[in-house]
Amino acid sequence: MISWNNMDTLASFQELMKTERVNLVEAMTGENGAERVKKYSIPMAEGLVYNYAAKQVDDTVLAGLVKLAEEAQLTDKFQAVYNGEVINTGEKRRVLHHMTRGQLGENVVADGVDKRSFYVEQQQKIADFANKVHAGQITNAAGEKFTTVVQIGIGGSDLGPRAIYLALENWARIHNTLKMEAKFISNVDPDDAAAVLNSIDVAHSLFILVSKSGTTLETLTNESFVKDALKKAGLDASNHMVAVTSETSPLAKSDDYLAAFFMDDYIGGRYSSSSAVGGAVLSLAFGPEVFAQFLDGAAAEDKLSLNKDVLNNPAMLDALIGVYERNVLGYLCTAVLPYSQALSRFPAHLQQLDMESNGKSVNRFGEPINYETGPVIFGEPGTNGQHSFYQLLHQGTSIVPLQFIGFKNNQIGTDVVIQDSTSQQKLCANVAAQIVAFACGKSDENRNKNFEGGRPSSIIIGDQVNPKTVGALLSHFENKVMFQGFVWNVNSFDQEGVQLGKVLAKRVLAHDTDGALKVYSDLLNI
Amino acid sequence: MISWNNMDTLASFQELMKTERVNLVEAMTGENGAERVKKYSIPMAEGLVYNYAAKQVDDTVLAGLVKLAEEAQLTDKFQAVYNGEVINTGEKRRVLHHMTRGQLGENVVADGVDKRSFYVEQQQKIADFANKVHAGQITNAAGEKFTTVVQIGIGGSDLGPRAIYLALENWARIHNTLKMEAKFISNVDPDDAAAVLNSIDVAHSLFILVSKSGTTLETLTNESFVKDALKKAGLDASNHMVAVTSETSPLAKSDDYLAAFFMDDYIGGRYSSSSAVGGAVLSLAFGPEVFAQFLDGAAAEDKLSLNKDVLNNPAMLDALIGVYERNVLGYLCTAVLPYSQALSRFPAHLQQLDMESNGKSVNRFGEPINYETGPVIFGEPGTNGQHSFYQLLHQGTSIVPLQFIGFKNNQIGTDVVIQDSTSQQKLCANVAAQIVAFACGKSDENRNKNFEGGRPSSIIIGDQVNPKTVGALLSHFENKVMFQGFVWNVNSFDQEGVQLGKVLAKRVLAHDTDGALKVYSDLLNI
Repeated sequence: MISWNNMDTLASFQELMKTERVNLVEAMTGENGAERVKKYSIPMAEGLVYNYAAKQVDDTVLAGLVKLAEEAQLTDKFQAVYNGEVINTGEKRRVLHHMTRGQLGENVVADGVDKRSFYVEQQQKIADFANKVHAGQITNAAGEKFTTVVQIGIGGSDLGPRAIYLALENWARIHNTLKMEAKFISNVDPDDAAAVLNSIDVAHSLFILVSKSGTTLETLTNESFVKDALKKAGLDASNHMVAVTSETSPLAKSDDYLAAFFMDDYIGGRYSSSSAVGGAVLSLAFGPEVFAQFLDGAAAEDKLSLNKDVLNNPAMLDALIGVYERNVLGYLCTAVLPYSQALSRFPAHLQQLDMESNGKSVNRFGEPINYETGPVIFGEPGTNGQHSFYQLLHQGTSIVPLQFIGFKNNQIGTDVVIQDSTSQQKLCANVAAQIVAFACGKSDENRNKNFEGGRPSSIIIGDQVNPKTVGALLSHFENKVMFQGFVWNVNSFDQEGVQLGKVLAKRVLAHDTDGALKVYSDLLNI
Repeated sequence: MISWNNMDTLASFQELMKTERVNLVEAMTGENGAERVKKYSIPMAEGLVYNYAAKQVDDTVLAGLVKLAEEAQLTDKFQAVYNGEVINTGEKRRVLHHMTRGQLGENVVADGVDKRSFYVEQQQKIADFANKVHAGQITNAAGEKFTTVVQIGIGGSDLGPRAIYLALENWARIHNTLKMEAKFISNVDPDDAAAVLNSIDVAHSLFILVSKSGTTLETLTNESFVKDALKKAGLDASNHMVAVTSETSPLAKSDDYLAAFFMDDYIGGRYSSSSAVGGAVLSLAFGPEVFAQFLDGAAAEDKLSLNKDVLNNPAMLDALIGVYERNVLGYLCTAVLPYSQALSRFPAHLQQLDMESNGKSVNRFGEPINYETGPVIFGEPGTNGQHSFYQLLHQGTSIVPLQFIGFKNNQIGTDVVIQDSTSQQKLCANVAAQIVAFACGKSDENRNKNFEGGRPSSIIIGDQVNPKTVGALLSHFENKVMFQGFVWNVNSFDQEGVQLGKVLAKRVLAHDTDGALKVYSDLLNI
């Protein structure tokens, strides 16, 4: 029997508040530190490892977190998710994104169909379509192969698929599986669509319109842009466009599209990368087999998230440590720092995933809560960030917990030796050095050169950024955010906070404004 | 006579702490709100306007900020900067980046030369070189024109020039002044250089190596990458490379480069976009005239920052409001939200500019301070962010002050009308709507749909993203950060916080590690 309770009503949370704070500098210095790094480590799927030695925890705090996980019934709640209960209470919907990559629990029948079968069927339809495009069986009107695929979508239809495409583009090139180059149009700023259209050969481009409702204003506007460009090039748009949408949307059965692939209301935008939303563009770009590997990685990591043993459940422990940092230690932000150029836009996706899911002030019943919820997430790839905002992270007045990601091998395999080490070794040396620098600091009589340390971080280490590890990483963070939402007792699957802006923007466009809104509209020449 | 005092010793700051908090919802609702938007507005250079009506201030708070500016001697301190005093106390250096774009005060002679003349001379040398490249007077060995320019640099040698290039690329294309396409290599991750090199025709590429000291490890490593690629293509690297460095660096007089352009120790990396660091790549990409326009925009805005009347000095007032938000209202973060795809990487540059300058825990004399300093800066372009992290900004438990930037016109000039409005109108309607939504909120009985409001923002509004407005924007934020550093009494021009990581990374590469660092190194296979 699941109870949904506010975090501050849980005895285990009250107890956690009273645990002694860990002195991270002491804990991580000397042989103690070495032992911690060996001990505070959990295997993830696909050869990844989650290491939390440099987090401000010890066995006592961890025991408190285990109790919190139990009292908050995190495993039971995850089971309720994948068994199809209506977990998204705000919108009264199931939450089934895990099912796009595997069957974790019971069969779920909704809208008259078995949902796992439905998602597999869509994946197969996309695979068939992509294979035909790659084989030259589906072509442009001149019978020529499509060479470019362009995703038109915003938010969850953009950030996740874009981050994953960028993560795997060079990997695919090296493995001779880059079938089509992918581009993305998202912003309603007309310069976004215009610039992308200027950079491609529209005659050999296939466009994917992604909108669950079929009514997203940015996306429809950008579709219109694309149709104009195709028309100007003397091309029939319906030969160049496919739709990813829900079966009930106006796009689903339109003749304007070569094909339509379906998602449904149980897949939130920010959780849709493993559905048709990511599937269409990634299968077209890399081939369906690569997309299937990505799903396998995510499914394998999902299974680990079932583990009731918190200390062997990386997503759950990561979530709990994050709650400890936010609510006990009082840290507002978390920086995500992948030491991999391939993951350059992964932080932007996690920023949406986390902040849109848990940036809430009411619990899942719509009642106010008395504690902080989701953190501010930001990040850039290392080593770039080291030469940018790390100054504040090391010596600023506020502590920002860090989440590093590093890989032993690069993707392209080209490297140089300078000063007796490769670039890859330098990259890895830097992330190792940063963890210790942040945790341990270094005393200096010149206080300007003094590092207090005590700045917590974790690291996920893997062999290489490839389809399976990217799938596993995505699942890890999706499940982390879900578990945190459970602890905070918020609904991580709606986003009412985006509505008011939409309503007011419509009023501006209808010239139905007064007061400040009217003056701003005038200043902006609308 | 200038005194450098900690902020908490200033009577005006103590007084400011006692001012009544403004109820932003009340202030911005109804005709009051309309009046505020009209009144709380300052013209900037190049037709820009800084509007702070939706900030949590009123005439009383503003009067307090004016007193703080006076007591902290902000204008006098800015004068000391541009008159060449040794303001960077940590590194015992002058701070002369303003002089790269104009002469605000006295002639400054250092290293035996008049510094304004020196910077103008470098700008001219770059202009001559760029003109010869564009005219085909400087070519590759086969006598063919260079078509691509690649900047090799990291941190300040990367983020600013890259953000400005992206801001102006489409503008230049439309104005037939895109002379060469620019690319950027920064990360020590070997996949960064490899991917860029795979995407260009090296035989027609000119590479700019940017390192003030000539010793930045990432940059030298990436140079080596490029030299390998040129050699493999049977090309002589010295025909394809120029250096931007200090006159005393090992790169300055090397035969390895076609030419060397100089900056000096008085230009910090993050303040170097208007020096040769930005000058070389931007002049080659867009032509020297465009770079000169960019400098004009910055110079014009610099002049406004001299204004002793705080309420007519946009950078100074923006700085003071930021201090008020950080130290009186207690907000940690600031989000920078440009409603312009062209400014997609501008937030990443401001993140470095701000966090590396003011993320400090000691004052300019190296003494500990008792108050918060630089905020965490993050941001993405609108409307994309609306479909991502805005949920937390609207309904999260922590308030994040916002800095919007919007333009009446797009760059490319292609647009479509959907539902009776253009994309540009939708873009502008959205930013207007967001300001009011954040400030005023909206009550709803369903608390999940309730918006508390009271979330402060400012907006800079301009006609278009073009060389002059980008220059003015850059100057605005550089001077804002400088003024905040003055108020906090920190040295905004050094970055000792980046050193410890470098030292430890070298130890890892030399296998000179023990404890936690050794175990992390093993885990990462170094």
